[in-house]
Amino acid sequence: MKVTLKHITPKKLIVDGIRICWKSDDNCDTIDDELGEKDSDLIKRIIKFGHTSTLEHSLITFEIEGISRALLQELSRHRVSVSPSVESSRYTLKKIINGEQIIASCLVKTGVDVIDQLNIKHMEKLAVLIKQYDIPNDIAKYGLVEAYKVREQISFNIRSFRHFLSLRTSKKALAEIRQLAQEMFKQIPKDYHIFFEDL
Amino acid sequence: MKVTLKHITPKKLIVDGIRICWKSDDNCDTIDDELGEKDSDLIKRIIKFGHTSTLEHSLITFEIEGISRALLQELSRHRVSVSPSVESSRYTLKKIINGEQIIASCLVKTGVDVIDQLNIKHMEKLAVLIKQYDIPNDIAKYGLVEAYKVREQISFNIRSFRHFLSLRTSKKALAEIRQLAQEMFKQIPKDYHIFFEDL
Amino acid sequence: MKVTLKHITPKKLIVDGIRICWKSDDNCDTIDDELGEKDSDLIKRIIKFGHTSTLEHSLITFEIEGISRALLQELSRHRVSVSPSVESSRYTLKKIINGEQIIASCLVKTGVDVIDQLNIKHMEKLAVLIKQYDIPNDIAKYGLVEAYKVREQISFNIRSFRHFLSLRTSKKALAEIRQLAQEMFKQIPKDYHIFFEDL
Amino acid sequence: MKVTLKHITPKKLIVDGIRICWKSDDNCDTIDDELGEKDSDLIKRIIKFGHTSTLEHSLITFEIEGISRALLQELSRHRVSVSPSVESSRYTLKKIINGEQIIASCLVKTGVDVIDQLNIKHMEKLAVLIKQYDIPNDIAKYGLVEAYKVREQISFNIRSFRHFLSLRTSKKALAEIRQLAQEMFKQIPKDYHIFFEDL
Repeated sequence: MKVTLKHITPKKLIVDGIRICWKSDDNCDTIDDELGEKDSDLIKRIIKFGHTSTLEHSLITFEIEGISRALLQELSRHRVSVSPSVESSRYTLKKIINGEQIIASCLVKTGVDVIDQLNIKHMEKLAVLIKQYDIPNDIAKYGLVEAYKVREQISFNIRSFRHFLSLRTSKKALAEIRQLAQEMFKQIPKDYHIFFEDL
Repeated sequence: MKVTLKHITPKKLIVDGIRICWKSDDNCDTIDDELGEKDSDLIKRIIKFGHTSTLEHSLITFEIEGISRALLQELSRHRVSVSPSVESSRYTLKKIINGEQIIASCLVKTGVDVIDQLNIKHMEKLAVLIKQYDIPNDIAKYGLVEAYKVREQISFNIRSFRHFLSLRTSKKALAEIRQLAQEMFKQIPKDYHIFFEDL
Repeated sequence: MKVTLKHITPKKLIVDGIRICWKSDDNCDTIDDELGEKDSDLIKRIIKFGHTSTLEHSLITFEIEGISRALLQELSRHRVSVSPSVESSRYTLKKIINGEQIIASCLVKTGVDVIDQLNIKHMEKLAVLIKQYDIPNDIAKYGLVEAYKVREQISFNIRSFRHFLSLRTSKKALAEIRQLAQEMFKQIPKDYHIFFEDL
Repeated sequence: MKVTLKHITPKKLIVDGIRICWKSDDNCDTIDDELGEKDSDLIKRIIKFGHTSTLEHSLITFEIEGISRALLQELSRHRVSVSPSVESSRYTLKKIINGEQIIASCLVKTGVDVIDQLNIKHMEKLAVLIKQYDIPNDIAKYGLVEAYKVREQISFNIRSFRHFLSLRTSKKALAEIRQLAQEMFKQIPKDYHIFFEDL
């Protein structure tokens, strides 16, 4: 999989949100979006006490390539303040499975060879049938295996991203979504780690 | 697919919600959850003028059996006030694909024979591999085709169910989700149709 | 304040939601919405591990009378899966402040006499002006004190109600909202306490 | 009131979100966040057909000063993808009503003199009592009139801001919230108007 951080909004919006509640703007010591000591303490405190609605003044947008449709199912369970735009198999299937591309490159590898080989063979046959019978995407999609790769853009706010990380970095999580959570976090700039260091 | 309405809350809760806003309880003419003329007019009016937050005092819960994972992906796009509980392939796969059940019964039919036959053959081979190599569910699930049947319980409030119906009964919708929307609506008792008659 | 539980949906919907995920319906031991031992254990387990989306298959609807507009402001901060219908001052003010009703009965008491007396006198003058100058509600509402009583119907699912209780029963909460949270919880039938006993 | 647009995210995030669904990145003609003709058409089309989830890849953050607590009640009704951080009367009241500031400057004017005068007199007395008896904020706040000014930071995504605008620019809306909606829209840069031109 390939994860790209496309956009993250300034930390200062969150600081301002917190300071408005307390009318303590005068104490703000963030300059050029670099958090001062007081503002850093403030952020730690609101996270500690669970006043995390102020973390919603933020947007983190990722592009994710090469995740499986199996993972996509799990990602879709996150519903609150999570905005996904997913490559639609209804509209794109024939652009991808067109007999020209190497099928193996369209599938996530499970690490278990017999399964991976089974998937490749099935998908190769599917590609042939699609071409031979001119099967419309709305039918062909039912033959996709869950290893089939998909591309997605997904936006979180910092509150919902914290929720996502806390659930999906667990050892009980599906390995692929755990990897995704870790790859996403790796993309977060160091000066934003303060929002996640309690997790 | 098989759709069962498991629960629907009384209409009176919505009437009460509307009448509280206007302090017009005295005009309420709903008895034993049978809407009177005045309350029926009231409901039509708030829907006409888009004051539909009062429709949130409701819960409709369905059980859905035998939908495909392809449809499940689309159903998951509905995020606001929609609560799904889905049969987890991570926990149930071997209970189902265990070599004893007939594979064809685990798959949704697309109506295109060559695709359906391809899917069945692939899934039969998958079932054999799972048994032979004792493949864990977390790996095996990557071999599932999207036609694989799943069972789900889903809850809406009337506002979010209206949104679902308006989008998914469209002719542009995937045939299977359109059928689902129609089957769900068929389960709604006649005396609740007033909440949907403008759609 | 007066809190009335108007409706609560069967616990069985939640049990079914959980059991669908695991395909363990056969173990269900809830009869006539009385939880058996196995289902009780199951509920405790999903709460312990934070798999609380299944708790969304529920609706709890309260009517609340005689809370202040000060409390209403705080109650409105709860946005996710909380559905309020509030007596509108725009539409009801003159029905209430009409010179006939005793003003004191329209105001929440703070327990501090000088404040309560100040509020009553102000509101009595407001009522006189409204009548004398035929002030429209949209203007008059700006003269309401925050102690002014309001009536509301509010619906939660059990997940969002748990969130509300956990925040608002805190000693740091405003006394009136803390009382509201406690009064609400008192209305919850004993056999539903299992959903809240970890709080 | 004073409305300041503090932040708005690039339009390109929305274009990318749409183009991922269709795998049509190659047609993207937005350069330096200036929408090309093709991307402009695309945005108009998705709005026309109601595929507005892609508009969620955005964040608009406003600071609002000098709105009344009456308006605040209405603003709080917007719950989905709206994130408010409000000056807390519990924490700030004595910083504001401290006998030093001119009370009139703390209150929104209704345009009806007798009401405005009544409010000022009441609030002046409240300020005196607070000082004389050292009334804690949690009690004193019950004496605030709804004309009392408040400051807020609020974040929307473009989808939820569209919903807000469509409801609150109506002639039936409370005059002050209508003014707020108009002031907010005035702050939106011209090159973002494409997201709102159908309203």
